[in-house]
Amino acid sequence: MAVITLTTDFGTRDTYVAEMKGVILSIVRDVHVVDITHEVTPHDVLEGALALEAAAPRFPSATIHVAVVDPGVGTSRRGLAVASRDQVFVGPDNGLFTAFLDDQGWRAFELRAAEFRGTEVSHTFHGRDIFAPAAAHLARGVEPARLGPPVTDPVRLRWPEARVSEGRVGGAVVHVDRFGNLVTSIHSDAIASLGSGVRVRVAGRSLPLVRTYGDLAGRDPGALVGSSKRLEIAVSAGSAARVLRAGLGTPVVVSRTSSAAERRARRRR
Amino acid sequence: MAVITLTTDFGTRDTYVAEMKGVILSIVRDVHVVDITHEVTPHDVLEGALALEAAAPRFPSATIHVAVVDPGVGTSRRGLAVASRDQVFVGPDNGLFTAFLDDQGWRAFELRAAEFRGTEVSHTFHGRDIFAPAAAHLARGVEPARLGPPVTDPVRLRWPEARVSEGRVGGAVVHVDRFGNLVTSIHSDAIASLGSGVRVRVAGRSLPLVRTYGDLAGRDPGALVGSSKRLEIAVSAGSAARVLRAGLGTPVVVSRTSSAAERRARRRR
Amino acid sequence: MAVITLTTDFGTRDTYVAEMKGVILSIVRDVHVVDITHEVTPHDVLEGALALEAAAPRFPSATIHVAVVDPGVGTSRRGLAVASRDQVFVGPDNGLFTAFLDDQGWRAFELRAAEFRGTEVSHTFHGRDIFAPAAAHLARGVEPARLGPPVTDPVRLRWPEARVSEGRVGGAVVHVDRFGNLVTSIHSDAIASLGSGVRVRVAGRSLPLVRTYGDLAGRDPGALVGSSKRLEIAVSAGSAARVLRAGLGTPVVVSRTSSAAERRARRRR
Repeated sequence: MAVITLTTDFGTRDTYVAEMKGVILSIVRDVHVVDITHEVTPHDVLEGALALEAAAPRFPSATIHVAVVDPGVGTSRRGLAVASRDQVFVGPDNGLFTAFLDDQGWRAFELRAAEFRGTEVSHTFHGRDIFAPAAAHLARGVEPARLGPPVTDPVRLRWPEARVSEGRVGGAVVHVDRFGNLVTSIHSDAIASLGSGVRVRVAGRSLPLVRTYGDLAGRDPGALVGSSKRLEIAVSAGSAARVLRAGLGTPVVVSRTSSAAERRARRRR
Repeated sequence: MAVITLTTDFGTRDTYVAEMKGVILSIVRDVHVVDITHEVTPHDVLEGALALEAAAPRFPSATIHVAVVDPGVGTSRRGLAVASRDQVFVGPDNGLFTAFLDDQGWRAFELRAAEFRGTEVSHTFHGRDIFAPAAAHLARGVEPARLGPPVTDPVRLRWPEARVSEGRVGGAVVHVDRFGNLVTSIHSDAIASLGSGVRVRVAGRSLPLVRTYGDLAGRDPGALVGSSKRLEIAVSAGSAARVLRAGLGTPVVVSRTSSAAERRARRRR
Repeated sequence: MAVITLTTDFGTRDTYVAEMKGVILSIVRDVHVVDITHEVTPHDVLEGALALEAAAPRFPSATIHVAVVDPGVGTSRRGLAVASRDQVFVGPDNGLFTAFLDDQGWRAFELRAAEFRGTEVSHTFHGRDIFAPAAAHLARGVEPARLGPPVTDPVRLRWPEARVSEGRVGGAVVHVDRFGNLVTSIHSDAIASLGSGVRVRVAGRSLPLVRTYGDLAGRDPGALVGSSKRLEIAVSAGSAARVLRAGLGTPVVVSRTSSAAERRARRRR
């Protein structure tokens, strides 16, 4: 049984996601169709790209990920299939797959072969008319290269990175989750490079780095390495976003705790 | 593998949808159960019927569509299985299936056979106790006619139509989607009958007919033929509903652009 | 095909639920993964436990239910697999499975066997790293007892019960559903014990006990036995929660209607 995932900004109130599933099941039946999320903020390509970055690695080899956050639908922007690592990504060429266009190697193809599109292609819903059929044919075993000509210059987004300088790592909040946890652009390996004994500054507060939510008392915020190995700011019994009045883009800095010796040295000057 | 879809006003916070899926999987295992939407406005039968009209045609032949928007549950209203085109529709007899009771031919049956119901039937949840079991048995290969006696007078809703008169088509907004697009009762063929060169009047504005969202600049509203072949009013980088302060029921008129000659003739009078 | 269900407080906007599904499908492919709900109020263990109580019995024998409402993740709280009746429940040991730890018999095991966990276990997401893998291995046919040592003292929640005294049953609202129906802690058998002729007092009103929503006129509230055999307060064309300004915890009392003889006797005193 093949696996196809869907990541969109369609929501679940309208029938758009179901229409994509109907198209997929009309082409291939022996498949799992799994929703990653349909609650990407409308037209927020980066948010969709970050969702894919977090979720795709958890899926088995050969999974086909369809992503549709597509403000350019019906214009001249290309449709792509990107084979990266051992999975395939299908959607508009607008940066959604940036995380998978890295130096681990990838191949991309423009979705041009008419035989792997829907019979009628609308100007407003390529998710249903181009991307879902392409994914379904891939799930049937069609090779990505048969979907169209190779693409060597797919669109890439400016990716939210952490800036590492001596003794500190600077980044920002890139996602606020349902619990109000503030997920940052700072990865655990950047923190590890600072050695032990760090503090995290955010929204005018200096927070300790803890191991898990339960290490925090009540509504005291703290920082921890979250499940996607990104630094998160959390509150155990509440929302860090609310307690700190922080959100997307809020700057976050991790720095080494000065040792007692360093503090004395500083005071002397 | 059979395909069963679900369309309800149950939302996804309560366990009602899951209870229906549990019942289905207790009767048939080799099946895809696909959500169309569970966010129909509570008790809004027309909204449910429009969702089915949009989504059902995208599903493969032999799909069984269960729809439960059912303010009359537990009263004397009938339960139905409607075989139309090459699919089957299961739910209360309250107009949900109006779009499929057309002159392409259909057969309807009242869900009366006890052997295809749950063992205990509540007065408040026929979705779980009558419709889900009927759908599961259909997915196992039971013929619709075995579910109960034929019905020749199923309930039909007054369907939102467009009024076509010389040189103009009048309709109304029938759905506002997640993006704020205003989906209307006007189908593309009615617009085509006007010939080329039309304008769309809505909420005191006169809008051009464009091909796709990307043809519109920023927050300028425009009209286009959407993915369900209905006329839509859209804003590229925002919500047409908000920009135009329009919503369900807002009147929309498509009319021919007067030619230069017509305009001159008018001025002379 | 095995069946695994998921009940969480993760919502569907973030990728957490999808990450669990990716892990499951990486271990076992011949499986239905069904969402019960992901909209449990964050950290509200009782709400999750009530959802499981309502939904689990509708699923087939051998279903594996994963529940993750887990404020204690990463602390010393145990992870459990509970075999009860003919199903298995997997999640944190915090009372989520209280309804299934009853005198019908159960066995519980602590999730300690490393071979049935993910390769890397985070401190913040055991749903993905411990519970999903355990469920997937169970779906492959692994015996619960192989997951770890037996547990005889799983955590139990104080369960919302009805107090039955002569001629009356007292309880409270335990859930407000999407329609605004007030689901109570009072089960139908407690009401039956009162005999026929009862009234329901809630929020300063005395309501009749009816059979189904359609027996109520417009916005008049009434009481009925809902689909989970709990007493519900409902309004036919609206929300009982709004009409009565009632919600979680609102007291509800069912009492026998005094007969005419009783009323006369009382007046005489």
